[in-house]
Amino acid sequence: PVTSSMEKPNIVTCTAPVNIAVIKYWGKRNEELILPINSSLSVTLHQDQLKTTTTVVASKSFQEDRIWLNGKEEDISHPRLQSCLREVRRLARKRRNDGNPSLDSAVLSHKVHICSVNNFPTAAGLASSAAGFACLVYTLARVFGVEGELSAIARQGSGSACRSMYGGFVQWLMGQKEDGKDSVAQQVEPESHWPELRILVLVASAEKKPVGSTSGMQTSVETSALLKHRAESVVPGRMAEMIEAIGRRDFATFAELTMKDSNQFHATCLDTYPPIFYLSSVSQQVINLVHRYNRHYGETRVSYTFDAGPNAVIFTLKQHVPEFLQVVQHFFPPETNGGHFIRGLPVKRVFLPDELKQSIGLQPMDNGISYVISTKAGPGPCVVDDPAQHLLGSDGLPKRTV
Amino acid sequence: PVTSSMEKPNIVTCTAPVNIAVIKYWGKRNEELILPINSSLSVTLHQDQLKTTTTVVASKSFQEDRIWLNGKEEDISHPRLQSCLREVRRLARKRRNDGNPSLDSAVLSHKVHICSVNNFPTAAGLASSAAGFACLVYTLARVFGVEGELSAIARQGSGSACRSMYGGFVQWLMGQKEDGKDSVAQQVEPESHWPELRILVLVASAEKKPVGSTSGMQTSVETSALLKHRAESVVPGRMAEMIEAIGRRDFATFAELTMKDSNQFHATCLDTYPPIFYLSSVSQQVINLVHRYNRHYGETRVSYTFDAGPNAVIFTLKQHVPEFLQVVQHFFPPETNGGHFIRGLPVKRVFLPDELKQSIGLQPMDNGISYVISTKAGPGPCVVDDPAQHLLGSDGLPKRTV
Repeated sequence: PVTSSMEKPNIVTCTAPVNIAVIKYWGKRNEELILPINSSLSVTLHQDQLKTTTTVVASKSFQEDRIWLNGKEEDISHPRLQSCLREVRRLARKRRNDGNPSLDSAVLSHKVHICSVNNFPTAAGLASSAAGFACLVYTLARVFGVEGELSAIARQGSGSACRSMYGGFVQWLMGQKEDGKDSVAQQVEPESHWPELRILVLVASAEKKPVGSTSGMQTSVETSALLKHRAESVVPGRMAEMIEAIGRRDFATFAELTMKDSNQFHATCLDTYPPIFYLSSVSQQVINLVHRYNRHYGETRVSYTFDAGPNAVIFTLKQHVPEFLQVVQHFFPPETNGGHFIRGLPVKRVFLPDELKQSIGLQPMDNGISYVISTKAGPGPCVVDDPAQHLLGSDGLPKRTV
Repeated sequence: PVTSSMEKPNIVTCTAPVNIAVIKYWGKRNEELILPINSSLSVTLHQDQLKTTTTVVASKSFQEDRIWLNGKEEDISHPRLQSCLREVRRLARKRRNDGNPSLDSAVLSHKVHICSVNNFPTAAGLASSAAGFACLVYTLARVFGVEGELSAIARQGSGSACRSMYGGFVQWLMGQKEDGKDSVAQQVEPESHWPELRILVLVASAEKKPVGSTSGMQTSVETSALLKHRAESVVPGRMAEMIEAIGRRDFATFAELTMKDSNQFHATCLDTYPPIFYLSSVSQQVINLVHRYNRHYGETRVSYTFDAGPNAVIFTLKQHVPEFLQVVQHFFPPETNGGHFIRGLPVKRVFLPDELKQSIGLQPMDNGISYVISTKAGPGPCVVDDPAQHLLGSDGLPKRTV
């Protein structure tokens, strides 16, 4: 009797951002629900440079849930994908039972097709799973007519994905409850709060695949006495300090805390048994470069942070970007045939004083950095209105262009 | 009236060993007295491979105290040298006042000439100051007729020097007293206790001079929250465990604790602000190599420890030395024109199974390790009886051969 409504596919496309933690998440107290041993705080990167786009179609005609990631069909049975699908559907059912009129209840029994692409190469080493799961949950929620707090669902896809559910400056509260209901993300400040802040992703030429973060943090929790101390006694104070520094737009405090927290995270990796090394010789050179650059000016103008890989994410203020990037290019001479060393937000070239080079005094490392993505803080997930942007066609399969 | 006795110089030559900590010392609670924030434990290396030799002459005819290190006259006014000279003379005066008949009281007013050489290159990156100050204090004490507990004096030259005052397995008790009188070294077991234990010093080709340990540990104490936690809450338990493991000659426990403690020390260096890196890419490869070697055999056969530099010190048992060194040579191919890759205790060549190489599966690093010193645990400082070994001539100046 409702053939026409059943034949019209329910299709939604959304985008979601990458985030980079300045107070690090490392270690779970509950593996299945992905409940962390400490709160964390991140900056959401702008989607003009880095985003995931996801289309979800729900249709009565689909036999099963299916997913395509970056053009390739993947196994939908992955437990974390299943958690997100199950939790969004559970929430939708709950809302329907609570008598929410906006919900098309037929869709609840439909299977979905999911198609997701990143606008940045996986080789960039950025935690694409955070943007990916945030986008999946955000898009699924719209297909199933669910609104409200979704970060606790995204968290069950990938811990840090919960922070990609908001723009600007975002904290993930570790929560206390056993069921994880209070382990959610919250916006601390919107992206408009600190317009001068700039972010540079220094993509290091990786020699080898590092230890995955899931197994890495598990080993750390089991073996590192320092990690436990960090989580219990160091992070709570740093969260408060960081939120205050962001509130005041106090760059020096923000930057120093960011560097200290990155270093402490990597220290706990080294205290893990067997030890885990994420910082390569390129990473170490970036760290030395930043400290020497700041020392040269007698103030903290630039800071670094590193996740579970060798790439540096640099925070600085708009006025320091051109010079600092010139410094990076000098101490990491890129391949001459490239040409696209700096990508993203345009950066003007400046003259680099010999005095500064000498003051830094490091040995240049050829091709240590493949390229740089220049970006800033940005908004949370968005719905894409233009139907031409859907990644799935009317047949529910990926379009040719994907 | 005592001309002849004044003209006969009082000359003593002694040797003292290098030691390598398995529970690390990093951080002082008192900079001047060199009182540590935690106890530590070391193995004394055999002097056949690594030692300092020191000759001290006391003579009424000398105008001032003088010192020659490795053939070059150095400034005797260095505060730590002055501490050792002052404390040995103070002790001698105390013994004379207590009525010790063995003491020639005239010598107390004499100036000394000191000459010291190492039988290993400074480039080996071994903490030569420990052997150096131990040897200085031990030799001075004999010149001034002082016996008994001297490690608290050696400690004031260089913290870890107190551990070089004994052979075998030695703990440095942090002590509680403000004057440092109870911050002394004690032998835990003599070198004869564990004859199968072998020690390999892997001398890494150093790219740059690392941060000195004195300033490094000062910055760590000031900035690392993890270091404080380590000193207060982790080390006491590890000291007890380590002493027990050595007592039982339990290699696996000894080896794992040694690796964990080395890693934790380097973790606190990384948690220092700005961070300190002592582990180079060569060090990281050694660490990975050891863990993969042990994994291959399903037991801990080999362990590593690193001080404030990139050189690895390997502990293993006698029966594993030939194969493990062959593995080292395979994954760090030495320069072909060298030929003296393995020095010290002779090591027989063995066949390296392909299966083992594949199981380790690392990319060989050419010339990453310059050479290896093969040694074992050894005795504490010794007096050299042969007058031909004196480094100073009858004129109180270094002999030509130095």
